[in-house]
Amino acid sequence: MQYEKVEKDYFINIEKDEKVMETLTRFCKDRGIKNAKLSGIGAVKKTEIGAYDLLEQEYIKREYPEILELLSFEGNVALKDGEPFIHAHVVLSDHEMRTLGGHLFETTVGVAGEFFIREFDGSAYRELKSDIGLACVCLPNNYE
Amino acid sequence: MQYEKVEKDYFINIEKDEKVMETLTRFCKDRGIKNAKLSGIGAVKKTEIGAYDLLEQEYIKREYPEILELLSFEGNVALKDGEPFIHAHVVLSDHEMRTLGGHLFETTVGVAGEFFIREFDGSAYRELKSDIGLACVCLPNNYE
Amino acid sequence: MQYEKVEKDYFINIEKDEKVMETLTRFCKDRGIKNAKLSGIGAVKKTEIGAYDLLEQEYIKREYPEILELLSFEGNVALKDGEPFIHAHVVLSDHEMRTLGGHLFETTVGVAGEFFIREFDGSAYRELKSDIGLACVCLPNNYE
Repeated sequence: MQYEKVEKDYFINIEKDEKVMETLTRFCKDRGIKNAKLSGIGAVKKTEIGAYDLLEQEYIKREYPEILELLSFEGNVALKDGEPFIHAHVVLSDHEMRTLGGHLFETTVGVAGEFFIREFDGSAYRELKSDIGLACVCLPNNYE
Repeated sequence: MQYEKVEKDYFINIEKDEKVMETLTRFCKDRGIKNAKLSGIGAVKKTEIGAYDLLEQEYIKREYPEILELLSFEGNVALKDGEPFIHAHVVLSDHEMRTLGGHLFETTVGVAGEFFIREFDGSAYRELKSDIGLACVCLPNNYE
Repeated sequence: MQYEKVEKDYFINIEKDEKVMETLTRFCKDRGIKNAKLSGIGAVKKTEIGAYDLLEQEYIKREYPEILELLSFEGNVALKDGEPFIHAHVVLSDHEMRTLGGHLFETTVGVAGEFFIREFDGSAYRELKSDIGLACVCLPNNYE
């Protein structure tokens, strides 16, 4: 992975055969990035995505070994159990321009992985909500 | 809804059963956010999206009651009739990782709704263009 | 095209019948925008998108003459042969809310084209990588 930082923005290049979630999460931990907005494009492989089944309180998961274009990677960083945790959703496409997508568990760069991290100097953290079954974002101000 | 502001960036958490467009629009009005960039992810339900038919000058609309992953929410805020107005497009996916999407009319958080608003201290407003049939963005500088 | 700049952020309105990639690239050259993050929504026509075939080291291309909603436009600007070069991926949808997408070669605004450019004062450039067959992003810092 290569990167450049300018103020609160990072331009990130994850290289071929590097895992995206593992690399970005480790980078956030090492750099002390606790809260951030993430985005990116590229072409990836060995992708595991899912959709949350609220009734069963578990993710339905699917794996895609082939190289797919990464059309949209949108996510955030918040603290979970005191460590930076990435929540990201992706839209992917195949050689027929057909799209698919979901909640991203992991993916590996197949061709290119070009991301931006914008640091947010906030206090967002995740806490398990029992009615949802997921660690949801908590923020300090309420708005009704 | 919960939020945190750092300089011009807001991290927003719209909670289960809250309407996204209504909540974000009201929040922009209350906070005096006249121009902004919006983005987000989550899982939503009771979604109404559309596609603009330029010949008929009207939107074709579809409703999706079920919970769908919100893979991408991208939009902007500009003034329309003097009030903050949100224009947003979404990509959604189902439990088979199949995607769909369009211009967002309204959606309700089904599981989670994690957004960023980045304020833009500009003068963007929307004005009806009769050849298009929509209120289009107007900006102060022309570039040919 | 119309625009407004506030600090490092540009709000951009590309008007009906203007080409998106040509216009944004020319604008970046004229304004000296060497590195940036791009995003946007709208409705476009005469769109050429593709998917990279790593084995053949060439893009598979498809053209879509009809107006499609532009659900997501995500990309970046880096220098290529000393000039600003845009790399962008798009997700599009039709009147049935069906989605498609890929690497964007060119598209023309059909109804509206609302974009943000966020300048990044960095040194990112692209250099041909022979094993990939594409000009990939190079950034000054390595992270293992």
